[in-house]
Amino acid sequence: MPLMKSWVESANAPDHPFPLNNLPYGVFSTPAHDPRCGVAIGDMILDMAAAEEAGLVDLADYPLFDVPFWNEVMEEGPELWAALRARLIELLAEGSPDCTAVEPLLVPMAGAEMHMPFLVSEYTDFYSGRHHATNVGTMFRGQENALPPNWLHIPIGYNGRASSVVVSGTDIRRPWGQLKSPDHDKPAFLPSRRFDLELEMGAIVGQASDGPVTVAEANDMIFGYVLLNDWSARDIQAWEYQPLGPFQAKATATSISPWIVTKAALEPFRTDTPAREFELLDHLKDCGPMLYDIDLAVDLAPEGKPATTIARTNYREMYFSAAQQLAHHTTSGCPMNVGDLLGSGTISGATKEARGSLLELSWGGKEPITLPTGDTRSFLEDGDTLTLRGHAQGDGYRIGFGDCTGKLLPAPKDPYAR
Amino acid sequence: MPLMKSWVESANAPDHPFPLNNLPYGVFSTPAHDPRCGVAIGDMILDMAAAEEAGLVDLADYPLFDVPFWNEVMEEGPELWAALRARLIELLAEGSPDCTAVEPLLVPMAGAEMHMPFLVSEYTDFYSGRHHATNVGTMFRGQENALPPNWLHIPIGYNGRASSVVVSGTDIRRPWGQLKSPDHDKPAFLPSRRFDLELEMGAIVGQASDGPVTVAEANDMIFGYVLLNDWSARDIQAWEYQPLGPFQAKATATSISPWIVTKAALEPFRTDTPAREFELLDHLKDCGPMLYDIDLAVDLAPEGKPATTIARTNYREMYFSAAQQLAHHTTSGCPMNVGDLLGSGTISGATKEARGSLLELSWGGKEPITLPTGDTRSFLEDGDTLTLRGHAQGDGYRIGFGDCTGKLLPAPKDPYAR
Repeated sequence: MPLMKSWVESANAPDHPFPLNNLPYGVFSTPAHDPRCGVAIGDMILDMAAAEEAGLVDLADYPLFDVPFWNEVMEEGPELWAALRARLIELLAEGSPDCTAVEPLLVPMAGAEMHMPFLVSEYTDFYSGRHHATNVGTMFRGQENALPPNWLHIPIGYNGRASSVVVSGTDIRRPWGQLKSPDHDKPAFLPSRRFDLELEMGAIVGQASDGPVTVAEANDMIFGYVLLNDWSARDIQAWEYQPLGPFQAKATATSISPWIVTKAALEPFRTDTPAREFELLDHLKDCGPMLYDIDLAVDLAPEGKPATTIARTNYREMYFSAAQQLAHHTTSGCPMNVGDLLGSGTISGATKEARGSLLELSWGGKEPITLPTGDTRSFLEDGDTLTLRGHAQGDGYRIGFGDCTGKLLPAPKDPYAR
Repeated sequence: MPLMKSWVESANAPDHPFPLNNLPYGVFSTPAHDPRCGVAIGDMILDMAAAEEAGLVDLADYPLFDVPFWNEVMEEGPELWAALRARLIELLAEGSPDCTAVEPLLVPMAGAEMHMPFLVSEYTDFYSGRHHATNVGTMFRGQENALPPNWLHIPIGYNGRASSVVVSGTDIRRPWGQLKSPDHDKPAFLPSRRFDLELEMGAIVGQASDGPVTVAEANDMIFGYVLLNDWSARDIQAWEYQPLGPFQAKATATSISPWIVTKAALEPFRTDTPAREFELLDHLKDCGPMLYDIDLAVDLAPEGKPATTIARTNYREMYFSAAQQLAHHTTSGCPMNVGDLLGSGTISGATKEARGSLLELSWGGKEPITLPTGDTRSFLEDGDTLTLRGHAQGDGYRIGFGDCTGKLLPAPKDPYAR
């Protein structure tokens, strides 16, 4: 599919993240607008509440867009999702007869503040990147036991905290936690010293389920995707995670990019999962090309210094797709709801430069990386700004994700001070 | 404290679960009433929406009770919680001048259906029963490594699925899942064969937090308590739980009793946590008697047969209190919200008869228990009805919890049939 041209000129630049082919969904505000639904087109945001009010988008008998979340649109289901996308393309395509009516409803992105694009119902984080699991397993259990016995058979995951999910741009406060150094007999309560990022993608569940669903049904339930940084306190995790998994180590914050890129926009970039040693059980089998070819990168900028790209990888490195993760999530009958967020797991590639966490990049702190600024990093330092970037490269256009950024602030001196 | 007498005669029987001292909060419906807030008094439910409408309860400028959840009352905070309890005692005490006005607003409990008493925001399940953790650890890792190294220092917990929490009386469907028998090379997708109960108590978080809270602050945030059965598929868990903890094994359902017993009603039953080998770190230290003396029991009734009590224990067996669990939950800065539910962990006592799960009672299936009906049980069988019961025994009165019951239905023949 080539670039679809828009009368919003900025959207037609070949490297712009938000061409007409994309049309991602976000929640924005300006001094003149309370937070409401908007659609990115080039450098502008289409005010969807205003477009609906003006009768330009008329998909339901009640307002869908004058709210600070996309959950109501999700609730409506895939037919409405398709109708909405078709109508937006009509309105914004080159030569649209609605151009003059729509133009006043565009808000410059530069003057808008982005908010959480949806209400997170529950948050699950998976561990389905094979290179990541192999790297971490090798560090902690040795090369021969790197992958747990179940790993190639099910998308391993754990439930996270929906309350800790924040939108890109939110500062992250280094947490305190109970830690035990190998050279101490007893644990202590201290600020985390091994605070890290995890480069992931998030899939947003747009339809509810009540019982097990197939992989194809799960795919239909997914509304769209965001970039996701699952901030992780490695030292808190090391002490707490046996036997019930990560808990406070992953509860400080998880950042997501502000624009939900729809499944429809990503459709041309479908690609197969990697080759498998073991055939998956029927209920988890691929039902077509299940992944997407999405280039991903991580930039790190020390306080007051320029950013360096410290990792480049691709979403096609995943071993299990979001649809397979979601299908597995329902096997027990677990009800899934509109607004559930599924983290992919850290996405690392085969090479050292493709590792999606500092834990892997610095090999547990044993091989600190050196930035062009001369700074070295084993884990994150106070003042570091992390930015995840991603796009699918089409023929003369890109499907871009908004950046997912966050700055690490120092731990509070006294976490209980009021 | 002695029995406080009510003009609702049934409430004054010494073994009644719902005397004036208790006044637990639930959500009920009848053919004449949509689900709404109610308070249990003896064999009756006070219709709180009607009481508010009649001006008998006037605590806010907007209606608090004509909704099918207690979250709005929780939001209001501890001062309103105290004022509400004081007003209810005034209205329902023997000799109350409001007796004639209130009497028509009482609905017989026998004709009411109970619903979820609150909207569960997120659900966390802890593992803070020492005898349970020791029993399970001994079975899986041997007596010497029974307790993980962190266990005596932090209340170990994991995030569960809020979407799977159901009210007492809801049937439970035996789940399918990916399992691997020790005698097979590969996993298979089958109905769980080792489906179990877990006797727990649930603490309901009634105030939000934004940053770490002390144990005393955490105690103030708790609104009340319910009985909780964390249904568990042991065979699914055995295959999935390394390295990130239980996931689908715990996602079929968690049942709670329908009445929220308030912290105020339980205050006379405060008791100390057990002796500790290791002093807790300051941020987790007890700040007074942190547990409650609450007798707990589990009844099992095979299909069409009478129930047998298979376990008797007490909430004072916990090693960490709900307030300590909640304080730990916030250490990383994890935001807690109104309606968060914290499971205590399985509550077992020191003796064999005090074990709060069939895993422990049958010692992993090696020592099936025999019921007076002649039936034996290693794990639950289809058609079994499980009932958790609990009360605090006062001087001539009881603070009762409503029963927490659920019947296990057979697994669907084809979980993907529509």
